[in-house]
Amino acid sequence: MLADSFGEKKQNRMYSQDLLLNKVNEALNKIAYPAQPENLYAPIRYELSLGGKRIRPVLMLMAYNLFRDDVDSILSNAIALETYHNFTLLHDDVMDRAEMRRGKPCVHKVWGDNAAILSGDAMLILAYRLMTEYNQKEPEVVSKALKTFTEATLGVCDGQQYDIEYETRNDVTEAEYMEMIRLKTSLLLACALKIGAQLADASDSDADLLYQFGEKMGLAFQLQDDLLDVYGDPAVFGKKIGGDILCNKKTYMLINALQMANEQQRVELNQWIERKEFDANEKIQAVRAIYDAVGIRQVCEAKIEELFAESLRALDLVDVESEKKQGLRDFAHQLMHRKY
Amino acid sequence: MLADSFGEKKQNRMYSQDLLLNKVNEALNKIAYPAQPENLYAPIRYELSLGGKRIRPVLMLMAYNLFRDDVDSILSNAIALETYHNFTLLHDDVMDRAEMRRGKPCVHKVWGDNAAILSGDAMLILAYRLMTEYNQKEPEVVSKALKTFTEATLGVCDGQQYDIEYETRNDVTEAEYMEMIRLKTSLLLACALKIGAQLADASDSDADLLYQFGEKMGLAFQLQDDLLDVYGDPAVFGKKIGGDILCNKKTYMLINALQMANEQQRVELNQWIERKEFDANEKIQAVRAIYDAVGIRQVCEAKIEELFAESLRALDLVDVESEKKQGLRDFAHQLMHRKY
Repeated sequence: MLADSFGEKKQNRMYSQDLLLNKVNEALNKIAYPAQPENLYAPIRYELSLGGKRIRPVLMLMAYNLFRDDVDSILSNAIALETYHNFTLLHDDVMDRAEMRRGKPCVHKVWGDNAAILSGDAMLILAYRLMTEYNQKEPEVVSKALKTFTEATLGVCDGQQYDIEYETRNDVTEAEYMEMIRLKTSLLLACALKIGAQLADASDSDADLLYQFGEKMGLAFQLQDDLLDVYGDPAVFGKKIGGDILCNKKTYMLINALQMANEQQRVELNQWIERKEFDANEKIQAVRAIYDAVGIRQVCEAKIEELFAESLRALDLVDVESEKKQGLRDFAHQLMHRKY
Repeated sequence: MLADSFGEKKQNRMYSQDLLLNKVNEALNKIAYPAQPENLYAPIRYELSLGGKRIRPVLMLMAYNLFRDDVDSILSNAIALETYHNFTLLHDDVMDRAEMRRGKPCVHKVWGDNAAILSGDAMLILAYRLMTEYNQKEPEVVSKALKTFTEATLGVCDGQQYDIEYETRNDVTEAEYMEMIRLKTSLLLACALKIGAQLADASDSDADLLYQFGEKMGLAFQLQDDLLDVYGDPAVFGKKIGGDILCNKKTYMLINALQMANEQQRVELNQWIERKEFDANEKIQAVRAIYDAVGIRQVCEAKIEELFAESLRALDLVDVESEKKQGLRDFAHQLMHRKY
């Protein structure tokens, strides 16, 4: 108070990413679910216990911490976002008939489809409850953040729907693909950062810049994930290579390869896409050979670099001392610098 | 204004149920869904266009109208509740593998399971958006109403889970059954009324009494629905008779019949429950004969009367001129006086 009244800048305590991650995990562990009905809440606890990097709540806390240091006051919002994210994983796994999630059987494999649908519904409601009922901020601030949250939750549904539709379409454009991954992946990262800023009562301009930082970072991250699916080292990447090629996923690389290919390459690529029976490794090798010939890896890497640079430029413009933003810069680099 | 300053009681305009129903249907028709992705929003429009009596939003508006007459100001809340209710129907139909809903094929029969799951998720989010973003009331009032809404949405999940679990249990007690139907059916009616009162800034006591009115009315309604499933006239009831008997649903009647039956009747009833192959009509006739011998119809009717009377008593205690409450009284009678 005294310092403030003499016009001296109050120093925020800046939390490390690890400390914030601990806070998120502690808060997630402390959620008091009703004991009954056991089979409604057990799948929720299970899904949230599978771990993960808790990227979204940590980003929210880091954005908030740029402006204020009472990060505990928005922990319920942070775990609301993580609960929401895990709800999308739970329902996506049902829709994709996935078997495993983070090395363990998916909820619908353990409890059945109906329990997975219903528990997912309850999780979405719990996320809204954490975002509203347990919110400690002023109503005006809450309502702003809530609007951003709903923009994200609806947008992710849109993205998932496009993703499903593109599976059976062969004329997906680059613009359509980029918009789909923006909705399905980037939006929630962008909104995590924006909500953090909004809850800290930051200016609209700073909140929007953080949103852009997250949005571009998310796009870069997803394109890199696509690239690793083709060129990654399975041991480092953590999942099988070539999955996107096998299911003809219309990624940035496939879409652009079809554009850049010569007539012979295009015919060959389309034959692989249309072939119903094939040897998995043979298809992966053949498609990768065309990608190499076309030089799609360099095109994709250039796009990733461009998006990543745009992302960091937006962060630079946030009206906060540069050293405070180092944590977010480091976070972005960590996210991107996966070896392949 | 002048009348007020002379201490005269300001007269609310009281809207008829039909007029409120029109307002609800108009507001539902006016919801501006995004044009894309078409296959995400088409199922939502379809589900909401199947009609129905819009009981919950109309009850909310009627409760609000007891205290204030600017009912248009809470239309978004009212259609939020209807959107939420239709979301539960959509997902329940997936879980129950239902074929038809209000005479038309269920969403999952038209668009497939995945679209039904995802559109349902979007509907739940839209319901929260209508309840928050488009809310025209003061933040304090919104947050009170929102808490009641979330109590309902989570409770209905609990109820659905119990309903699923009780299908495979033979030792469901009367208390368990009553709690299940309270959660699955009554709670949303109770909360519709309570939210209406809360948005009108009514006293907590009046809001709670309206909640009780809805809760008891809902229980009476559900027990009557169970009774009609056994003793109703198919032409009036609108669906096949005996469905609960065929699937051994542990209703108030079955649970109490097992309690009240003599040894021979109990053995016979249990044999029907355990029999895997049977003639549908024969089973219905046989179980109904035991019900008749035990006198379960009278027991159930007495319970319905008791709950209905409790319901009206709670309404009577709401601190509003009696004639204003006539609309809600009429509504309750309409709901109950289905012929059988």
